[in-house]
Amino acid sequence: MKTFIAFSGSLRKDSFNTNLLKAAQELAPEGVTIEMVDISTFPLYNQDEEGTYPAQVQAVKDKVLAADGIIFATPEYNRSIPGVLKNAIDWISRPYGTNPFAGKPTLIMSASGGPLSGALGNYHLKQVMLYLDAHILGQPEFFLGGAGSKFGSDGKLTDEDTKAHITKALQALINR
Amino acid sequence: MKTFIAFSGSLRKDSFNTNLLKAAQELAPEGVTIEMVDISTFPLYNQDEEGTYPAQVQAVKDKVLAADGIIFATPEYNRSIPGVLKNAIDWISRPYGTNPFAGKPTLIMSASGGPLSGALGNYHLKQVMLYLDAHILGQPEFFLGGAGSKFGSDGKLTDEDTKAHITKALQALINR
Amino acid sequence: MKTFIAFSGSLRKDSFNTNLLKAAQELAPEGVTIEMVDISTFPLYNQDEEGTYPAQVQAVKDKVLAADGIIFATPEYNRSIPGVLKNAIDWISRPYGTNPFAGKPTLIMSASGGPLSGALGNYHLKQVMLYLDAHILGQPEFFLGGAGSKFGSDGKLTDEDTKAHITKALQALINR
Amino acid sequence: MKTFIAFSGSLRKDSFNTNLLKAAQELAPEGVTIEMVDISTFPLYNQDEEGTYPAQVQAVKDKVLAADGIIFATPEYNRSIPGVLKNAIDWISRPYGTNPFAGKPTLIMSASGGPLSGALGNYHLKQVMLYLDAHILGQPEFFLGGAGSKFGSDGKLTDEDTKAHITKALQALINR
Repeated sequence: MKTFIAFSGSLRKDSFNTNLLKAAQELAPEGVTIEMVDISTFPLYNQDEEGTYPAQVQAVKDKVLAADGIIFATPEYNRSIPGVLKNAIDWISRPYGTNPFAGKPTLIMSASGGPLSGALGNYHLKQVMLYLDAHILGQPEFFLGGAGSKFGSDGKLTDEDTKAHITKALQALINR
Repeated sequence: MKTFIAFSGSLRKDSFNTNLLKAAQELAPEGVTIEMVDISTFPLYNQDEEGTYPAQVQAVKDKVLAADGIIFATPEYNRSIPGVLKNAIDWISRPYGTNPFAGKPTLIMSASGGPLSGALGNYHLKQVMLYLDAHILGQPEFFLGGAGSKFGSDGKLTDEDTKAHITKALQALINR
Repeated sequence: MKTFIAFSGSLRKDSFNTNLLKAAQELAPEGVTIEMVDISTFPLYNQDEEGTYPAQVQAVKDKVLAADGIIFATPEYNRSIPGVLKNAIDWISRPYGTNPFAGKPTLIMSASGGPLSGALGNYHLKQVMLYLDAHILGQPEFFLGGAGSKFGSDGKLTDEDTKAHITKALQALINR
Repeated sequence: MKTFIAFSGSLRKDSFNTNLLKAAQELAPEGVTIEMVDISTFPLYNQDEEGTYPAQVQAVKDKVLAADGIIFATPEYNRSIPGVLKNAIDWISRPYGTNPFAGKPTLIMSASGGPLSGALGNYHLKQVMLYLDAHILGQPEFFLGGAGSKFGSDGKLTDEDTKAHITKALQALINR
């Protein structure tokens, strides 16, 4: 039995990336649970407030610590990581010395309407997670471009190649 | 007469980077005003909320649009841009087609207690601002390491070399 | 009258990127010359050999110094800058204090057979050229994906959208 | 018994990074051999020449394939990977489908005379090696700044803190 904790980099209701994580939940093999966490209620990180660590942050931090692996699915904003996702990571990595990402097998996916597929934000996130000592899957990479045509109007992933790629990436994460 | 709009990447009260910007305000030559903006009250960016653009975001966006140049002073968090600063940039760059940073001479400074001086976050920010078509100063770079010994207990910059480097960087920004 | 010096990041005879530069030569407006330089005969950079600066390096360095602007067209290799191109830049930037790229308007293009279009290498190169104080065009970006279908069997660019994008990018370089 | 293959990013005779690798050879625990390879005779990579793969490249490629882990020690040139090192990696990763770095525990060190310690080049190299599916040590990071005072006139590492950090990093590589 394995539990993976999943972060979407977009708060948009119909986010391609959130929908990609929902597809991963459905495609996960038996015995694997993918749990999405909510980062939309995190305050903006301020080191002065570390003494009164927010409860919603601590809850996610505890889940990461207990997890068998981490999955990110994120757009890129302005050729880098969305601030909202980076803010969550900044909180979770603190206080100094309590980083829960260390040693966790980690899959970083990106979906985007355009051809570049969020690749530049994806690799900025890899720099961050490598520093946090996550065991990132270098391969397979996961870039979904032209995402607008890969989901139905109900937000369900319809593209078979993408489904197969999710299955392959999840298997690599399980084996790492 | 020139006005530069300044962003600190840290919300911490005694932030080295905020204090660096205060030093820049004092060192600015006659005719140059450096105005710091407050990004601590920005909500987390959510594209679904673009229809009701937050007033505090719009106010900063208007200042950027009217500015003669932009100054960032930012720590790096986890080897990249602080989420709080990236969140502000994500808001200000939106909605699509209204990016106010385009063509603005831009200085990106970093201060840190350690030797690496925030250089990795500094260059991630340069990638973002280059995409946003800012006219970034490639040189002089501005990295302040060992910042703990460069400010007095009142937060005032005391290091003469750093003061000279600020003066040089501001002059380069004025001339760009 | 303007002269732009152009570097291809690939030594391959039928390189998409070299062919992109040839297309730029044909599309350049009257009064603008684009001159491609040969970096294939540069030795591997070794600081110990700076005393006897290679003639073929000095010749390119002189051209860069005299140029009105610089154009790169480069694939990405292994998600970064091709070693062969980086080696050329390492030579040209030396000895310390004689960097000829400073202040030069610079366009960085990438072409690739795949969808990511060499974007990750493109931005690594932007980090380098920003450090070397080039005045890089942040916009328009120039990414050509699926390059295999955009050129004829004689290597000539046939895609009209790409031609239009070259014309637009050259105009931005001229105006910078 | 473990064998690690080591690459220096500098061809300079008295290179800090080469000397760092020599120190690692001396500090390696019993049963661990660190073998440095020579990349100075590699030609500039040209995909057209892949049919006649150079013997000196194939020899290094075979060593990487057989290795228990990989060590890089490299300066940064112009805020990125030295061209000479990237050129070696570009060769070794080819032809497509024969990348020998996949799955190899990998330590990436940087030494520099200045305070930034080559950190920006170090992380560009991490992007490359992550793509090549190496199992990079995220922690401990290895940055040696102010290297000029850490070695004797004979090139031997004299700084005890650095020796201890090498020992720690090698142990992490052995355990990965």
